[in-house]
Amino acid sequence: MAGPATAVSLAPGDTVGILGGGQLGRMLAGAAARLGLRTHVFCPDPDSPAFDVCAAKTVASYEDEAALTRFAETVDVVTYEFENVPARTAAVLAAVRAVRPDAAALAASQDRLVEKEFVKSLGIRTAPYAAVDTAGSLARAVAQLGRPSILKTRRFGYDGKGQTTIKEGTDLAVAFRSLGSVPAILEGVVPFTAEVSVVCARALDGSFAAFDICENEHTNHILHRTVAPARIAPDTAARAVAISRSIADALHYVGVLAVELFVTREDGAETLRVNEIAPRVHNSGHWTEAGAVTSQFEQHIRAIAGWPLGATGRHGISVEMQNLVGAAVADWHRLMATPGVAVTLYGKAEERAGRKMGHWTRIVQS
Amino acid sequence: MAGPATAVSLAPGDTVGILGGGQLGRMLAGAAARLGLRTHVFCPDPDSPAFDVCAAKTVASYEDEAALTRFAETVDVVTYEFENVPARTAAVLAAVRAVRPDAAALAASQDRLVEKEFVKSLGIRTAPYAAVDTAGSLARAVAQLGRPSILKTRRFGYDGKGQTTIKEGTDLAVAFRSLGSVPAILEGVVPFTAEVSVVCARALDGSFAAFDICENEHTNHILHRTVAPARIAPDTAARAVAISRSIADALHYVGVLAVELFVTREDGAETLRVNEIAPRVHNSGHWTEAGAVTSQFEQHIRAIAGWPLGATGRHGISVEMQNLVGAAVADWHRLMATPGVAVTLYGKAEERAGRKMGHWTRIVQS
Repeated sequence: MAGPATAVSLAPGDTVGILGGGQLGRMLAGAAARLGLRTHVFCPDPDSPAFDVCAAKTVASYEDEAALTRFAETVDVVTYEFENVPARTAAVLAAVRAVRPDAAALAASQDRLVEKEFVKSLGIRTAPYAAVDTAGSLARAVAQLGRPSILKTRRFGYDGKGQTTIKEGTDLAVAFRSLGSVPAILEGVVPFTAEVSVVCARALDGSFAAFDICENEHTNHILHRTVAPARIAPDTAARAVAISRSIADALHYVGVLAVELFVTREDGAETLRVNEIAPRVHNSGHWTEAGAVTSQFEQHIRAIAGWPLGATGRHGISVEMQNLVGAAVADWHRLMATPGVAVTLYGKAEERAGRKMGHWTRIVQS
Repeated sequence: MAGPATAVSLAPGDTVGILGGGQLGRMLAGAAARLGLRTHVFCPDPDSPAFDVCAAKTVASYEDEAALTRFAETVDVVTYEFENVPARTAAVLAAVRAVRPDAAALAASQDRLVEKEFVKSLGIRTAPYAAVDTAGSLARAVAQLGRPSILKTRRFGYDGKGQTTIKEGTDLAVAFRSLGSVPAILEGVVPFTAEVSVVCARALDGSFAAFDICENEHTNHILHRTVAPARIAPDTAARAVAISRSIADALHYVGVLAVELFVTREDGAETLRVNEIAPRVHNSGHWTEAGAVTSQFEQHIRAIAGWPLGATGRHGISVEMQNLVGAAVADWHRLMATPGVAVTLYGKAEERAGRKMGHWTRIVQS
């Protein structure tokens, strides 16, 4: 059984503890099983999709410290499928077992302001931003960044939740209140030519590997489609990987890391600005399950187990992934009958608008 | 919930019942989960590897009819990872839910004599054989087929178990007793140039798809290495697929079927003789998990769910798979560090000589 030491490696038959029981936890558990590892999933929701594929489960709140401690004692390493793990939760777990990625990765990615300042401290560009703590500071930020700009809560935003656009005529006090009058950040709109992401991994020994950079299209703030490789210049791709590696190294990161970037065209050249970092497997890396030698899920498990990273080579000349959001999942049978399309369904009990129900991947061979 | 009707198709969220909890059951459960299906594994061994990855489990004997009935009532279709499912077990299950592949497939593959006569009835060649019920009939069979030849029990043989070679000087009465004096079959030795297998699938609507034919090498009667595609003439490969399809069609088969064949060179041409059929996913198809668009495990689940078959295309110019048997699994860490090698470990608690502990696959890209 592993101790809380940070350098410990797992052996086949050991148990990976996963916080969060959604589709990412489910796919992580599947990858762990292929590698001969057991999984124990911790999630408050008794209907969690990951509970169908794990050796043990705990249904408890992330604030239940006794349950967290018991969970940590039964596993050999702890990881998570979402970055909003409360700091106290992570600390309780880390007192018993190694948590990978660790508290530094959570701290750098949970708060949009902290994240931007961390990225900036590495000499990497971001979207222009300003902190907003009051309706008054929002007015000053809008004066600085202009309209349109995007007001986002500093914490707990995802898939467009916790954000609103400041347009011509938007009442700033109403906008600030609409997000709950909580600490926020105003971001200037970046006139991007593409949104790309680098899904990469850093191992316990510091080695690093990136999958092919992919290009993402969003619909209603939810990822709709990813294509790999991204249609950007090779030099831009190399710089995106270098940026991602410098972020991973600065955090002494262990696991799969996703770095979302905007590509802009400035003075005729492609420029990169970091949009967000996610200390976990990422929706834009789902294509790797069908389309790469190693999936991002296996790569994450390899990294947090202290094992060597896998090869990141791509099958085919390109790969396309599309999410099945809400009612779109009704198309699953037709997709399954489409030659060369791999369909993954998440086993969610209930279909809801805006809920990710599955995805499909197609490898383009010629 | 599905009824026992034979034509029923599953929907995402439904449950696949799997008899047998070894590595094949484990990999089938993983494939089912990716397709949004739940699994319920039935196995007498409480330490079964498949129990780590299923939504529900039953630990009971295959003769426990009450447990079998309860199991069948909670699932939407029943399948299995081994062909030695007792006929009574299959009948109890089939009274409640569709069993796929069905009793005809089990009957045709559980008994070496019945299997050979079934194959022969389709006009397909096998190794020369003779039924052996007594030491006296063994003497007549040896007179007919010569030495060396191989005496095999009609039932319950696998990985070289339940067989013995009749050489010059072998005492026939001792040989017959050494297998337990049970009904047996004597097989003439086929001077093969290659052992190949066709891993293929037939869907509920009768559609058929085969993976690339692979070439198998055995060590101590256990599969050691598989390479796809097999190094045989294209015409021979086409005939092997046609043979497999005629077997699948004759059985009105639903699921993945493996047909092992000997390739011999007779009168300068490649000739095929069926060695064995297995009504299940097969060790020689393990390469498809890393090396094909659809894995054999997903293909089997698609077929028994009543869904369309997946594409069987191969990644790379060839694929190599090797089993990790017994102590060979100690090499897992080095293999995981080898670029482009995908390692699968079965999560078995105990390593034993001759026990399959995992496998690795390498896709050759150039």
